[in-house]
Amino acid sequence: MQEDDERGEGGIALGRTLALSDGIFAIAMTLLAFQIQPPDLHGNEVHHLASALGALGNRYFVYVLSFAMIGMLWLAHHRAFRHIRRADEVLMSLNVLFLMAIAALPFPSAVMGLYGSEPVAVVVYAASMAIAGSLLGALLLLARHRRLLTPETSHEGVVAALWNSGATVAVFTLSIPVALVAPGVAPYVWMLILPLRVVGGKVSRRAAQE
Amino acid sequence: MQEDDERGEGGIALGRTLALSDGIFAIAMTLLAFQIQPPDLHGNEVHHLASALGALGNRYFVYVLSFAMIGMLWLAHHRAFRHIRRADEVLMSLNVLFLMAIAALPFPSAVMGLYGSEPVAVVVYAASMAIAGSLLGALLLLARHRRLLTPETSHEGVVAALWNSGATVAVFTLSIPVALVAPGVAPYVWMLILPLRVVGGKVSRRAAQE
Amino acid sequence: MQEDDERGEGGIALGRTLALSDGIFAIAMTLLAFQIQPPDLHGNEVHHLASALGALGNRYFVYVLSFAMIGMLWLAHHRAFRHIRRADEVLMSLNVLFLMAIAALPFPSAVMGLYGSEPVAVVVYAASMAIAGSLLGALLLLARHRRLLTPETSHEGVVAALWNSGATVAVFTLSIPVALVAPGVAPYVWMLILPLRVVGGKVSRRAAQE
Amino acid sequence: MQEDDERGEGGIALGRTLALSDGIFAIAMTLLAFQIQPPDLHGNEVHHLASALGALGNRYFVYVLSFAMIGMLWLAHHRAFRHIRRADEVLMSLNVLFLMAIAALPFPSAVMGLYGSEPVAVVVYAASMAIAGSLLGALLLLARHRRLLTPETSHEGVVAALWNSGATVAVFTLSIPVALVAPGVAPYVWMLILPLRVVGGKVSRRAAQE
Repeated sequence: MQEDDERGEGGIALGRTLALSDGIFAIAMTLLAFQIQPPDLHGNEVHHLASALGALGNRYFVYVLSFAMIGMLWLAHHRAFRHIRRADEVLMSLNVLFLMAIAALPFPSAVMGLYGSEPVAVVVYAASMAIAGSLLGALLLLARHRRLLTPETSHEGVVAALWNSGATVAVFTLSIPVALVAPGVAPYVWMLILPLRVVGGKVSRRAAQE
Repeated sequence: MQEDDERGEGGIALGRTLALSDGIFAIAMTLLAFQIQPPDLHGNEVHHLASALGALGNRYFVYVLSFAMIGMLWLAHHRAFRHIRRADEVLMSLNVLFLMAIAALPFPSAVMGLYGSEPVAVVVYAASMAIAGSLLGALLLLARHRRLLTPETSHEGVVAALWNSGATVAVFTLSIPVALVAPGVAPYVWMLILPLRVVGGKVSRRAAQE
Repeated sequence: MQEDDERGEGGIALGRTLALSDGIFAIAMTLLAFQIQPPDLHGNEVHHLASALGALGNRYFVYVLSFAMIGMLWLAHHRAFRHIRRADEVLMSLNVLFLMAIAALPFPSAVMGLYGSEPVAVVVYAASMAIAGSLLGALLLLARHRRLLTPETSHEGVVAALWNSGATVAVFTLSIPVALVAPGVAPYVWMLILPLRVVGGKVSRRAAQE
Repeated sequence: MQEDDERGEGGIALGRTLALSDGIFAIAMTLLAFQIQPPDLHGNEVHHLASALGALGNRYFVYVLSFAMIGMLWLAHHRAFRHIRRADEVLMSLNVLFLMAIAALPFPSAVMGLYGSEPVAVVVYAASMAIAGSLLGALLLLARHRRLLTPETSHEGVVAALWNSGATVAVFTLSIPVALVAPGVAPYVWMLILPLRVVGGKVSRRAAQE
């Protein structure tokens, strides 16, 4: 949608890149819920629907968690791309790689919903999120390296935008050894992203005002 | 798409917010139908296809109902966002929370299609819709609080836009005690949304003309 | 995307209406293919993969047919909306109803792929397509009635745009009695849409030139 | 999004064509991952989750491969359409045919993930990719034939844009006889696309500068 700033070739490329990205984010987020299917009850079991729905408890928790995490990655993707003025094929290719990590997230999320007490499930989930965060950071560094940033982007602005990706990677990587010892504790480690993100938002706003 | 009004940062953020929102609405609406799978017939059973399709009757009804309800929420989202001139990260985060409620709707809808005569199924369905409606109202109040509304938006315009969310929340919350006593009556309570919406539309148009 | 012509409220409404419509068309079309799942082979059966894939023959045919039909409805939706300059809530509501018919199409398509030799499957498929075509025609008539058409739209232009919807409705309605007698013949009746569409295209271009 | 260049009818048609295309690409790419479902473990089997996830190894490989290939086709679609200034109904119809090939790709991809050591699976996969590449080349030739290209498009630019489609078709067609003899070797043949694409990118940039 930033093609208004740049009506040339790089601007059209940016418009389609954002359209594909928003599409993949939207589908991955909606499929998170589609992984939860209604219980299959027959005859008199139907009267135990409440307890059958309650037994899916952990899956609702994982849905809310994963939706919030992918939503946060979408916000971070927006935060990175508002500094990018046009796209070239190298940036578009790395963005496809980033989207490959995003589109894959419903799978570790479903594994986590089914087997959340197994260390392997938590490690796979945390590693997937860390990979997505790393690729997002790489996208921004690549854009700076290839001079695709808007002229107004200050050094502080890039650092602030990298903060979010960095916080995601750090928190999820840190949670991997925690998950190996105590898988139930790892989600509490992930909660650290929220205060880090608030700090990042403040840094980002301060950089924008300078 | 409102970025034409505001070409700055808040306008781009609004463009991507609407793109993600329309994507999630489109997928959630289409997955409602995908929850209905063809009957699995073998050998001579194939000649009873008509009755096997007829046995899915309640699911078609729930598809039409849920599609109409999500479609109405999409219209209400549009009605709220046409008063919003730009988006900031707080509004984007609350919108992600609203989309979390929308993306989840195919699940209570499938439960309702399978076990519509159970009070629990109807209560879960009504509660999901009431939550989505509440978050939409909260979005508009947040936008007003953070001064993100268009300058032309009158106090009456905001009240009219809140009317729809309020009607949705009221009708679905009211239907929960009804569903606990008589689950089959609750869908008739929901029909009350239609006349309330027509009234809301008239109020909204009058507010726009003043 | 027509908001460039009309930057006011009706133009924004049109932009979001087209975004939701294109999203639902895209998902419904892609889910057509997702209805075909790979055969489930174990052990030595794997060496019979070729014949197992061949046994799905009718489903590939229904995929190609349904994708072409929904693609044609998408083209007809575009042909109708290029005459529409802005959207109001009544038009948006009828468009949601039209999208309800589009989003439902993967279901009759899957039934047809599985039980294509049963008259019921063919009748359900033809009736679904006829309903979608009727709603599209109604959309255009409503837009004319509510004075939402572009000023350049001539009476001939509306007639030409209605031609496609009318041809779809006529051909699929006509095929229903045919399907009841000989279900295998109905798809050949549907092929009549192609020459009718070519004629409609010529009429449309002539109307545009006058 | 190129409607800024052409605000007339052909430009609006182009905008909706790109919206539908990006939507179908996004969904097909995300459904690739959805084909991989978590293992179904009960009781003590849960402790063997790591090996159950490891047993899906080939499917992760096929996911990465297919996502990269569809991503490359998306980039090639963008490369073709940046030379196209407006769309007419013939181009839109051929684009729907191309999207039919794209939307179908999750199916051969799932077959390849399950039965990748069977020659038939590899041949079906390679043939699907070759068909998609051919239709993309045909799109560009049709656009040139119907004078829908931008005035700046040089003969060299068209040749460079055709290079990618041609390379995809050549490599996948070449891999079919290879797959019949040694299915495990075919994916290495596909890797040839990467160097060919780099060459194509250089040719394309040189053509753009001349």
